[in-house]
Amino acid sequence: MKDKLMLMIPGPTPVPESVLLAMAKHPIGHRSGEFSQVMAEVNQGLKWLHQTQGDVLSLTVSGTGAMEASIINFLSPGDRVLVGNNGKFGERWVEVCQAYGLEVDPVIAEWGQPLDPEQVAEKLAADREKRIKAVVITHSETSTGVINDLEAINRHVKAHGEALIIVDAVTSLGAVSVPVAQWGLDVVASGSQKGYMMPPGLGFVSVSERAWDAYKRATLPRFYLDLGLYRQDYAKNTTPFTPPVNLFFALQASLQLLQAEGLEGVFSRHERLMRATRAAVKALNLPLFAPDAAASPAITAVAPTTVGAEQVRSLVKKRFDIVLAGGQDHLSGKIFRIGHLGFVGDRDILAAVAALEATLQELGVADFNPGAGVAAASQVFSSLRS
Amino acid sequence: MKDKLMLMIPGPTPVPESVLLAMAKHPIGHRSGEFSQVMAEVNQGLKWLHQTQGDVLSLTVSGTGAMEASIINFLSPGDRVLVGNNGKFGERWVEVCQAYGLEVDPVIAEWGQPLDPEQVAEKLAADREKRIKAVVITHSETSTGVINDLEAINRHVKAHGEALIIVDAVTSLGAVSVPVAQWGLDVVASGSQKGYMMPPGLGFVSVSERAWDAYKRATLPRFYLDLGLYRQDYAKNTTPFTPPVNLFFALQASLQLLQAEGLEGVFSRHERLMRATRAAVKALNLPLFAPDAAASPAITAVAPTTVGAEQVRSLVKKRFDIVLAGGQDHLSGKIFRIGHLGFVGDRDILAAVAALEATLQELGVADFNPGAGVAAASQVFSSLRS
Repeated sequence: MKDKLMLMIPGPTPVPESVLLAMAKHPIGHRSGEFSQVMAEVNQGLKWLHQTQGDVLSLTVSGTGAMEASIINFLSPGDRVLVGNNGKFGERWVEVCQAYGLEVDPVIAEWGQPLDPEQVAEKLAADREKRIKAVVITHSETSTGVINDLEAINRHVKAHGEALIIVDAVTSLGAVSVPVAQWGLDVVASGSQKGYMMPPGLGFVSVSERAWDAYKRATLPRFYLDLGLYRQDYAKNTTPFTPPVNLFFALQASLQLLQAEGLEGVFSRHERLMRATRAAVKALNLPLFAPDAAASPAITAVAPTTVGAEQVRSLVKKRFDIVLAGGQDHLSGKIFRIGHLGFVGDRDILAAVAALEATLQELGVADFNPGAGVAAASQVFSSLRS
Repeated sequence: MKDKLMLMIPGPTPVPESVLLAMAKHPIGHRSGEFSQVMAEVNQGLKWLHQTQGDVLSLTVSGTGAMEASIINFLSPGDRVLVGNNGKFGERWVEVCQAYGLEVDPVIAEWGQPLDPEQVAEKLAADREKRIKAVVITHSETSTGVINDLEAINRHVKAHGEALIIVDAVTSLGAVSVPVAQWGLDVVASGSQKGYMMPPGLGFVSVSERAWDAYKRATLPRFYLDLGLYRQDYAKNTTPFTPPVNLFFALQASLQLLQAEGLEGVFSRHERLMRATRAAVKALNLPLFAPDAAASPAITAVAPTTVGAEQVRSLVKKRFDIVLAGGQDHLSGKIFRIGHLGFVGDRDILAAVAALEATLQELGVADFNPGAGVAAASQVFSSLRS
């Protein structure tokens, strides 16, 4: 059936009607008072979402552009950086840092496992000369459904005293609490097509005062992504380069929805969706790829053994118009991923789990009890709702 | 009256209904076959608009991001570049080049005057050691309404034999012919909120085979804007990083409209709008800022002497909800600019000219004949339509 598509991938995520319609408005001049009003509201909303009074800058980029801006504004060629790498987006951090001639000291974990904060602590403790300028990590690793222990890692960074903490929060912001001010997170990158409940095209970078100090010393070349230019104009509710006006309309609408729900409501909803999804997958006798203790509230990866991951994924799409994500790189064909971040509610999880059950049945998978997934998810919903 | 705004600025430009509604569709997965079909169609349309079979890459950036990509992919630190500078966007080229440590040899003309192709020719002829790696110019200088003689300048570049020609065509593409293949233009940057008739948020870079050869030797650091990554994925109708899916829907719709009108139709319409606007301004006894011989078909700058430019601009906005652009930098308060590119037709020019007349009357300007502007514009329309 045309236009019946249901996105359960980790971005783009489903977009509410009011956000879609906001985007369809005629553009206005980006140097107008009207647009400055939009930006003023949006900038306040972004501070609220990031739990900070510091700067949260909006850039016309996708998430990778926000990641790159998070590196090149605060570091200089040859700077040593600890880079957490336990998935595709950890690898991307490594690639960005290497492209700019940084000395990358990797902290590695197997794909599907979280980074070990103790490894970071040891490397930082051994760095008596304070050569490490930044610790760079992915918060929610989209490729595996693992969430890294940002709070613990950040504590070690703070104990080091010199290094900045630079975080890819692309699939965590708006799904799980990222208390920028309380934890003292220096640079946090995110993108619009995830927890923000809007289409791709905007990237965000939150910058601490410590990071602005580092900015003054950083010598990597930059112009379009020079956050100092954005900061100057940010204070006047404008931008150095033409902003994507219609995406700002969308952001304004989506922030209004998020604020109406409240931070606690947004985070507890994602926690509930994650728990229900994982309970259902377990009840269907399918192996979860990430351990419970490191489960991302944004996305759940499933590594089926008695049926092909791509078989499941393509049949769920064909029969029920639900788009699940596949595995990336060496996980291609080995896992499928259920996105449950952004504009997703309990009903969507029930529908997806029911569709998954129906698909397993159609594929002749025998080692599960039909109905068990929906029952397990429902159990989570009723216990957490009560 | 709310929502009655009429944009006559050089971007964002008015957006057709079908393009706005395309943008309001639910996003689809950017790694899906459905999205690849959209990209395949869009990529063909972009080649058509650029009059080339070469690569025209789409990036999630505003125009300045496309400009930066046009530099950092093809040059190395210390490379010497001739940069045309006769307005705000010429200055931006200088800033981008300097940010990346290039040796900038400027070719300057006063704001409001075109670059002199002979100056470029002399500098290139004097470069016997072939140290000049690129000639970088703005085609249509948005800040002044001047169009530079790209064809003549490019002829001199071709006579040099080594230098690339790198062009900011942000306000010329889709308004005037930019025959990329025929002229052998190496790198052409543009942005979506201009002749493309869609909101800001997408940038485009057309790349010649000669430029791809230069890419292999270029050592400036890059990752997010690394066009080699885009080229690899372009062949598969996909992108290295998440594209702004909904803006692609918009681009698909706008390219369909442009193709229905045909290149000749699009270019002759802009020529007609420019001539009618200039005839009207002259008939109203207002000085044009750019000479006839270098008049941009995208935008007309007016430098009133008997009334303040900002007075006109603010009253036109207040009374008639028409947004004109002001002057930038030292031209602030000295000129106003009438944008007539993108989704603009003859009726819009008549309305804008009539509103301008009414505004001059209300401001007590005495040295013009009310009605003369509309009459002059109508005269152009009837002569060019016949």
